[in-house]
Amino acid sequence: MSGHLSEHAYGKIKIRVMKLNRQSSGRHEIHELTVNTLLWGDFADSWTTGSNTKIVATETQKNTVYQLARSHDLSSPEEFGKVIASHFLSTYHWITKVQVTLFEDPWGRIHIDQEPHNHAFTKTTTERRYAKVVQSRGAPAKITGGILNFIVLKSTQSSFTGFVGHKGSIMEKDKWTTLGESTDRIFSTSVESEWEYASDKAPFNECYERVKTAFIKNFAGPAKEGVPSPSAQLTQHQMCLGAIEACKPHITDIKIITPNLHYMPLSSLNVPAHMHATNNDVFFPIDGPSGYITSSASLNRSKL
Amino acid sequence: MSGHLSEHAYGKIKIRVMKLNRQSSGRHEIHELTVNTLLWGDFADSWTTGSNTKIVATETQKNTVYQLARSHDLSSPEEFGKVIASHFLSTYHWITKVQVTLFEDPWGRIHIDQEPHNHAFTKTTTERRYAKVVQSRGAPAKITGGILNFIVLKSTQSSFTGFVGHKGSIMEKDKWTTLGESTDRIFSTSVESEWEYASDKAPFNECYERVKTAFIKNFAGPAKEGVPSPSAQLTQHQMCLGAIEACKPHITDIKIITPNLHYMPLSSLNVPAHMHATNNDVFFPIDGPSGYITSSASLNRSKL
Amino acid sequence: MSGHLSEHAYGKIKIRVMKLNRQSSGRHEIHELTVNTLLWGDFADSWTTGSNTKIVATETQKNTVYQLARSHDLSSPEEFGKVIASHFLSTYHWITKVQVTLFEDPWGRIHIDQEPHNHAFTKTTTERRYAKVVQSRGAPAKITGGILNFIVLKSTQSSFTGFVGHKGSIMEKDKWTTLGESTDRIFSTSVESEWEYASDKAPFNECYERVKTAFIKNFAGPAKEGVPSPSAQLTQHQMCLGAIEACKPHITDIKIITPNLHYMPLSSLNVPAHMHATNNDVFFPIDGPSGYITSSASLNRSKL
Amino acid sequence: MSGHLSEHAYGKIKIRVMKLNRQSSGRHEIHELTVNTLLWGDFADSWTTGSNTKIVATETQKNTVYQLARSHDLSSPEEFGKVIASHFLSTYHWITKVQVTLFEDPWGRIHIDQEPHNHAFTKTTTERRYAKVVQSRGAPAKITGGILNFIVLKSTQSSFTGFVGHKGSIMEKDKWTTLGESTDRIFSTSVESEWEYASDKAPFNECYERVKTAFIKNFAGPAKEGVPSPSAQLTQHQMCLGAIEACKPHITDIKIITPNLHYMPLSSLNVPAHMHATNNDVFFPIDGPSGYITSSASLNRSKL
Repeated sequence: MSGHLSEHAYGKIKIRVMKLNRQSSGRHEIHELTVNTLLWGDFADSWTTGSNTKIVATETQKNTVYQLARSHDLSSPEEFGKVIASHFLSTYHWITKVQVTLFEDPWGRIHIDQEPHNHAFTKTTTERRYAKVVQSRGAPAKITGGILNFIVLKSTQSSFTGFVGHKGSIMEKDKWTTLGESTDRIFSTSVESEWEYASDKAPFNECYERVKTAFIKNFAGPAKEGVPSPSAQLTQHQMCLGAIEACKPHITDIKIITPNLHYMPLSSLNVPAHMHATNNDVFFPIDGPSGYITSSASLNRSKL
Repeated sequence: MSGHLSEHAYGKIKIRVMKLNRQSSGRHEIHELTVNTLLWGDFADSWTTGSNTKIVATETQKNTVYQLARSHDLSSPEEFGKVIASHFLSTYHWITKVQVTLFEDPWGRIHIDQEPHNHAFTKTTTERRYAKVVQSRGAPAKITGGILNFIVLKSTQSSFTGFVGHKGSIMEKDKWTTLGESTDRIFSTSVESEWEYASDKAPFNECYERVKTAFIKNFAGPAKEGVPSPSAQLTQHQMCLGAIEACKPHITDIKIITPNLHYMPLSSLNVPAHMHATNNDVFFPIDGPSGYITSSASLNRSKL
Repeated sequence: MSGHLSEHAYGKIKIRVMKLNRQSSGRHEIHELTVNTLLWGDFADSWTTGSNTKIVATETQKNTVYQLARSHDLSSPEEFGKVIASHFLSTYHWITKVQVTLFEDPWGRIHIDQEPHNHAFTKTTTERRYAKVVQSRGAPAKITGGILNFIVLKSTQSSFTGFVGHKGSIMEKDKWTTLGESTDRIFSTSVESEWEYASDKAPFNECYERVKTAFIKNFAGPAKEGVPSPSAQLTQHQMCLGAIEACKPHITDIKIITPNLHYMPLSSLNVPAHMHATNNDVFFPIDGPSGYITSSASLNRSKL
Repeated sequence: MSGHLSEHAYGKIKIRVMKLNRQSSGRHEIHELTVNTLLWGDFADSWTTGSNTKIVATETQKNTVYQLARSHDLSSPEEFGKVIASHFLSTYHWITKVQVTLFEDPWGRIHIDQEPHNHAFTKTTTERRYAKVVQSRGAPAKITGGILNFIVLKSTQSSFTGFVGHKGSIMEKDKWTTLGESTDRIFSTSVESEWEYASDKAPFNECYERVKTAFIKNFAGPAKEGVPSPSAQLTQHQMCLGAIEACKPHITDIKIITPNLHYMPLSSLNVPAHMHATNNDVFFPIDGPSGYITSSASLNRSKL
């Protein structure tokens, strides 16, 4: 043969689990997660010879998540991920590394005439929190927090001027630039972000809330006047800096992706000018193509 | 040929439109809809001979939605649907019937330190409101309201006993019934419902909120103790009766579908009993198969 | 209360089942279906009083599909649907009507160096066949066949001229028509269709293939020169007439929906003319908005 | 501020483009791609100060793909990706690196009575080919080929024995292993794979076909008897080795993911034994949880 095995791992994905905590007061808490496990170790034989002697069945991995949920709390995906990773390492000596990814379902409590209900819930948001725990034998777990599909829109205080093909830019003539400058446009995006924790003992739940609040504040600005966004890039970076500041010193690195959800003015249609919106107040959202902006920010070393 | 044309219609689907209302106070309102149009009329020729002489291009239908959005408010999908339907009937004399379906995007206002933001928004729910307007020439519009994907869960006060294959039922022995009775189970569903309005001048926005509140109250019960659900069927019907009552006399008929989102106890797994959850507090949600319950309720005639 | 129960039914959806037929020659056949059941009957009590005495658990309905699959062939979804419907009616005397919907997975046989493999398969198409069986007590089953997501494209022989807003149409001036006439455009659609069988003993598998072939032949025309499509409507109707003809006298009615999958020319972009495609050979597909064309055709009575 | 910008890039995603090649014979060829672009360069200012002076609008990137499609062939996603990457580097001197990802739509030619049609097409497979081109200024492009969603199933010649919790394994007692050994089970998976080319001048289209054929042959084995799979891991690795061998020396590394599409026997249900399938011929597919197997293989250095 001309090739050889260079990497190998296996696990179980889409393990859905829900834990119900019945408090003595009659109040119930629920936490629902979708868990993925992934194992590395001394079992290359399974790929090269078909020997399963060191293979922990993926069915067993599923059972493990359910059994550990019996004795552990699920209110922090990061903490439950640590429990799962530790279990595999301590139970199976030939496993060298474990990755656990956990996605949380956004259940919120139902209110009846402003009063919180003891045991009724509804899905409250479109965004989804997740956590990733990677633990190698003999080393502390490396913890990542994350958020997916957090959709926001600001209807003013966004502009885009001075870019390539326009005056003031590095290249004022560009043959295929057709987009005009805009001093007041809609800015909407579906935020996706993940961040690295400095230690495996950070206040994960609190940090998640602080990251989300920092994102909102830096995207939207003060309630009355907002904050100008001269580029999606600047706003994105300010969201990251805000998150690092708000969680200091717990987050060392944060990555963010903010694909544009474009709301196009009628004037961008190939229609006569009298069919444009006089007040620029009618827009058509498009599913794609979509601008895609990404960056990472890191905690200044002096802050560690 | 052995066949002939028996029905025909055409329109445009997935017309996405957003209207921004800039109030003088600096506060912005946004309303986003996805609109489908469908036209009936005297244009069978297009199917039988290929003549397009009476065909209003679907591109024109898209343009129409955008142009009508310039001069009309989008805050009630039902009202905007009526505007669109009327326009087609009044502009094109050979069109005999118009159907407009409008799905609303659930934008909510962002709050900064409890203060509502003037121009920043986020997607706040998983459920989606829709409306359907059907208007035939010379007749009042028939209006339907609807809700999709409204996900709720109650963690107690749900039972399922006395069904076929168990004591007290009409057939106490049933060879393929394996499900045991349960006196305390999780009940979760994704509500889908639509309702007919008695007239084309009902308070549509208010009725939508009242239907949703009635659904929540009849599903969840009072905040402290909840309300027993001896069958998903009963709860579903009470939700409908509650909606009719809350909107009286505006809703004449309401249809509802509440597919079960099953949360299975560990004891339903094919695993040894010591691996079941001692306190019945760990569950695994499944994507399917799923119980599917549907019914309709109607306003009593004496109430009309 | 102001309302009352007007309709009610329940069942199980997303029951996935696969049957493996090991032939003595060593050749295997597989058939995979997703089955939905729906029951009507004398069990309004479940909705009005919460009594489950006549409720066949949806879990039992799932078991029933699996048990019937043990003793029956799955090669025709229509035939297997009849078996399921009959079972519910004959086993539970208070059930008055059953609907079974069955979606087939498009498994095809893998070939190795042109030779068909005995037991290896791959998903071969994007389209999906389905069948619906509705049986009321004491009446013959009513059978519907269907196809979903059958995606086709022709790169010429499609035009769209003479429509409203252009010369020769009923209304030559139309204020919001912006689409120009086209004598050579791309025509692509995702076909969705369902048809009624004249009896519950038709050659269902053969008819399905004949419908699909008729659709292809009437959409595409002869292999060399194709066939002109002066409107999506005409082509759609010819597809239906062709299906009725090909299956005569088994199909009495056929309904079809052919939403346009638009491939837009660069000239429809709001860009300078020198950026249009000189040979009209570059297009951009859009996800929406989308033209939506639908019609039904029926077998001439004299042919029954 | 406590943080600083550490990485940044931006581009355009979901740029859909189709090229129609009208050959003089009357035969048409079509190629449809969805393209994502991503640019790196000296434009950190956009994130840190909001200056757009070096920003090529993502709208311009979209235009670029369309304009380059006018003058270039789209029959190889890798080759078209190279054209796009080169264009950005040569046009904008401050851009330092470009990544282009291209997903191909699986159009196949329609046949009418066995004859290939000149201009009619259908979607023929569920799998999707893609390519990724990464080019840094002054360096050759790094090319990756890939396949997504290639679904296969073998109905025998798959076993899983001797794993942890069973005799012969490294740990014969394992408290949470409940899965029994199987000597004849269904093996189905949705293959996802990507591979690195040794140079930017490999025969990409030919290699793609060879990889796919190697996957099929090593998954399914000879047409009559097949090939045993003692573990999904072994089969996966043989698929990779086969691909490297078939494309020698063009592919240096290949990564593969084969999540299990589980077909469960009725005996895995929590039902009485008489409801199991006597001949083990009825299965229920599940959407999840799902075993997840991944590995990489590399070309032996001596073969380079």
